[in-house]
Amino acid sequence: MKQVSSLQPGSAVWQQKLYAIIFEANTPSGKLFDVILLWSIALSVAAVILESVSSIQLQYGFLLRVIEWFFTIIFTIEYALRVACVSTPRKYIFSFFGIVDLLSIIPTYLTVILTHSHYLLVIRAVRLLRVFRVLKLSRYVSEADILTQALAASRRKITVFIGAVITFVLITGSLMHLIEGPANGFTNIPKGIYWAIVTLTTVGYGDITPQTPLGQFVSALVMILGYGVIAVPTGIVSVELSRVQGDHSNAVQCELCAQRGHSPDAVYCKFCGEKLTV
Amino acid sequence: MKQVSSLQPGSAVWQQKLYAIIFEANTPSGKLFDVILLWSIALSVAAVILESVSSIQLQYGFLLRVIEWFFTIIFTIEYALRVACVSTPRKYIFSFFGIVDLLSIIPTYLTVILTHSHYLLVIRAVRLLRVFRVLKLSRYVSEADILTQALAASRRKITVFIGAVITFVLITGSLMHLIEGPANGFTNIPKGIYWAIVTLTTVGYGDITPQTPLGQFVSALVMILGYGVIAVPTGIVSVELSRVQGDHSNAVQCELCAQRGHSPDAVYCKFCGEKLTV
Amino acid sequence: MKQVSSLQPGSAVWQQKLYAIIFEANTPSGKLFDVILLWSIALSVAAVILESVSSIQLQYGFLLRVIEWFFTIIFTIEYALRVACVSTPRKYIFSFFGIVDLLSIIPTYLTVILTHSHYLLVIRAVRLLRVFRVLKLSRYVSEADILTQALAASRRKITVFIGAVITFVLITGSLMHLIEGPANGFTNIPKGIYWAIVTLTTVGYGDITPQTPLGQFVSALVMILGYGVIAVPTGIVSVELSRVQGDHSNAVQCELCAQRGHSPDAVYCKFCGEKLTV
Amino acid sequence: MKQVSSLQPGSAVWQQKLYAIIFEANTPSGKLFDVILLWSIALSVAAVILESVSSIQLQYGFLLRVIEWFFTIIFTIEYALRVACVSTPRKYIFSFFGIVDLLSIIPTYLTVILTHSHYLLVIRAVRLLRVFRVLKLSRYVSEADILTQALAASRRKITVFIGAVITFVLITGSLMHLIEGPANGFTNIPKGIYWAIVTLTTVGYGDITPQTPLGQFVSALVMILGYGVIAVPTGIVSVELSRVQGDHSNAVQCELCAQRGHSPDAVYCKFCGEKLTV
Repeated sequence: MKQVSSLQPGSAVWQQKLYAIIFEANTPSGKLFDVILLWSIALSVAAVILESVSSIQLQYGFLLRVIEWFFTIIFTIEYALRVACVSTPRKYIFSFFGIVDLLSIIPTYLTVILTHSHYLLVIRAVRLLRVFRVLKLSRYVSEADILTQALAASRRKITVFIGAVITFVLITGSLMHLIEGPANGFTNIPKGIYWAIVTLTTVGYGDITPQTPLGQFVSALVMILGYGVIAVPTGIVSVELSRVQGDHSNAVQCELCAQRGHSPDAVYCKFCGEKLTV
Repeated sequence: MKQVSSLQPGSAVWQQKLYAIIFEANTPSGKLFDVILLWSIALSVAAVILESVSSIQLQYGFLLRVIEWFFTIIFTIEYALRVACVSTPRKYIFSFFGIVDLLSIIPTYLTVILTHSHYLLVIRAVRLLRVFRVLKLSRYVSEADILTQALAASRRKITVFIGAVITFVLITGSLMHLIEGPANGFTNIPKGIYWAIVTLTTVGYGDITPQTPLGQFVSALVMILGYGVIAVPTGIVSVELSRVQGDHSNAVQCELCAQRGHSPDAVYCKFCGEKLTV
Repeated sequence: MKQVSSLQPGSAVWQQKLYAIIFEANTPSGKLFDVILLWSIALSVAAVILESVSSIQLQYGFLLRVIEWFFTIIFTIEYALRVACVSTPRKYIFSFFGIVDLLSIIPTYLTVILTHSHYLLVIRAVRLLRVFRVLKLSRYVSEADILTQALAASRRKITVFIGAVITFVLITGSLMHLIEGPANGFTNIPKGIYWAIVTLTTVGYGDITPQTPLGQFVSALVMILGYGVIAVPTGIVSVELSRVQGDHSNAVQCELCAQRGHSPDAVYCKFCGEKLTV
Repeated sequence: MKQVSSLQPGSAVWQQKLYAIIFEANTPSGKLFDVILLWSIALSVAAVILESVSSIQLQYGFLLRVIEWFFTIIFTIEYALRVACVSTPRKYIFSFFGIVDLLSIIPTYLTVILTHSHYLLVIRAVRLLRVFRVLKLSRYVSEADILTQALAASRRKITVFIGAVITFVLITGSLMHLIEGPANGFTNIPKGIYWAIVTLTTVGYGDITPQTPLGQFVSALVMILGYGVIAVPTGIVSVELSRVQGDHSNAVQCELCAQRGHSPDAVYCKFCGEKLTV
């Protein structure tokens, strides 16, 4: 998220100028480009969503299709320019946003072969996440960073947790398939597993529900367990978020010993006793 | 939430007396006014709710309509008096409660043009929140303050989170529209997005449910994700609440260095070593 | 939860002996009494539940009714003895368990007048909570204390929260009654409020669901809000639990300054520097 | 979770070699054995799940049955070898994984007597949890440890909580059976209890829903209570997780006084003042 214009060795002057406009937001033209881009994305996503409503499609179908092709061509040109102006195209193409940018234009071209594939254009919505960079909302970016770091730190614990949940769901699903049987909607084990996930996550559609007393008893156990289980990811994220937040908010650095991590209201460095300059 | 009668320069004596009765609750007549007002609001809201029940409306319809007009006229007079006695009417009219007070009387007059608009009178219920001020429940007000501050501090993090959730819901909704199609209730992308929100928030009505094995597999992924995702706002609010609560409960101030923020059981000031007087 | 046999001035010797058996659990006969009582309660509750199942009622109805009357007479005698042996009967009769003990025998006598009232006998289940006292599970009692204290400390914050939720639910319910109308199940405002609670708490039965696009849009907003809102009570309880738990677990007291509240791994008193004896 | 090859006194050389291959993962052959085993388990579980889908069963039923018997025989041999090579077979047989290993082969043999019992083979999925040991993911093991410890520490508090929830659910279920009656699906008290659990845990299938105004009012109270109640286990787990995590992450030990438990950023030992070596 560096905002400083990085000098790109070995790239022509036009490339550097283009780079400043397309990839950065700290020049007037760069900012203008980004604002136009964001509106284009929002409009094109709205067009795709509206087109899926049959009554609107009947009346404005042609117009919406024109808008779709118009924006797709614009975005294709934009993608080509992005590839052209970066010093190492490979790095951009295989970056997260590079892949999203490509996936945002492919579906329209695929409609020639596959009907309805243009609904996949909503992946463009991901590009809207760039809004935080454009609006120079550095505080939002830092908040997003905190969330991302907390989730990344919870990674392993959540993997273990998901592993245990999947094992539990496999066994419960099979058990309910045996208890309830196809007559009550548990036609096969995958259906049972689907039911177990719907129940454990407390979504509870009600499309498949236990009918036998034994099945309802097992369900009740699963629900009470699910109740306790939902506490686990919440606990994990809370603890990590609290830790990461603590690290961020304590950004004050001691001038003598260069240590960080002081509590927000500290006046003296807790490592060497030097007065802190906030 | 100041309770001190603010001298309003440039306002007549009758205005100041009226102000003390209507806007304040620390004089006997002011308190009486507020108690009568709260009961009137509660009664008028109950009348609106009861009127919507067709069996009651058939029997007591006329009586309920009379009650409604009676309270509306009372509240209109009250609103006029409020505007009349404040020194800067503009400020009151565009304040949160000023707008609520106005919205609480308009719907009745609108029934002349729009039938059923009087159901909007339940917005009067918002006025009941003044109860905390009337009952001098300063501790409740301070608790409400803590909650409000914690939510305000979580503002940016929750914006980033909601942004990510909306993007996710847009893409999942479109994907399910493609997978399940109109035959299984996913008639268009907005329906798909509605389904995605119902599922991700674990509400799970069951009015639209996936029928195809692939759709059920994608749903299961969404649910497990939603399970983890619900942990994020909970974590955010917990952490902020813990911090804000800490700030409030540590209201003890050192007499020597005037610093606050001591832990609840501290005996000596942690900044200058002076003994604390609790 | 004192376990020490309290000498009751002004009561006869037989009263004191009976008191030790019935109210206390630290003598062999007192413990035996409690164990028999708990099993009786469990059996009588099971009998009531089984009687409600029509197939079982047809076959064993008479037997179950006999069991019910048998235990009711036993519990009536027990209640009379409890009243007889306490020094201040009034205090026991109006205590929480005194009222529960009375409510546990009344429904059977009411069946002479009201059929089905005996189903209310399940209130006896509350008496099972005495199990923690009987089994001398002092650690469980202390854990229950921590939970109770944390909930009590959250009392005011939760009142403010419930107040805000009720106001929100009143307004949303009325709005949806206007948007969806009786044709889609929102027959009156109370129905709308019921729907709003079902949705906001993420229960989502699906017995009443929005059918119009506008109604579904409003629902989606309510759900996303409910998502954030569920974080609030969780945050409140977490914070209080953490604080109360901290208070309990730091029960070590300094021998010099008699201060408590040291962190679990502290070796020296943080108030006066004296070495701690754990 | 010791990885060191434990010399087993009184066992032959072939036993020790076999033990190193089957029970340990730090030799090339031991690792190869574990990888093959995990794939075998995954494949055999997949076969059981697929066989339950009737369309697949019709086409590939014989093949899947052959795979099932093949793996069952393999696992039977493996189980026999495990018993043979441990120095104290009793200890292995009655360990958690010993029982799971046995339950993973029995269902196939039972199919001779009981049809469909082979669906119970999915219990093999539990054996997949050994994956963390095989992949030498010691960090995952330690994360799993933290989760397990936090849940174990919450044990008593959760018991008290579950006790209170069961009592509440018994009473609410009976009350709703009285209010709604068999006509609205509350045919007996167990059904009412099932409904109460479905509602309190916010699963909300919607297979049984209150129809009378009074029933809906009671439901609304249960839901709002359930809303607050879900906060309790979350709070419990969060607090314990935070404590256990703190214990683990502060694993640095002072070289002078051998004390642990320093905060992550401490430079000096908080017990004796010695500099810490991280």
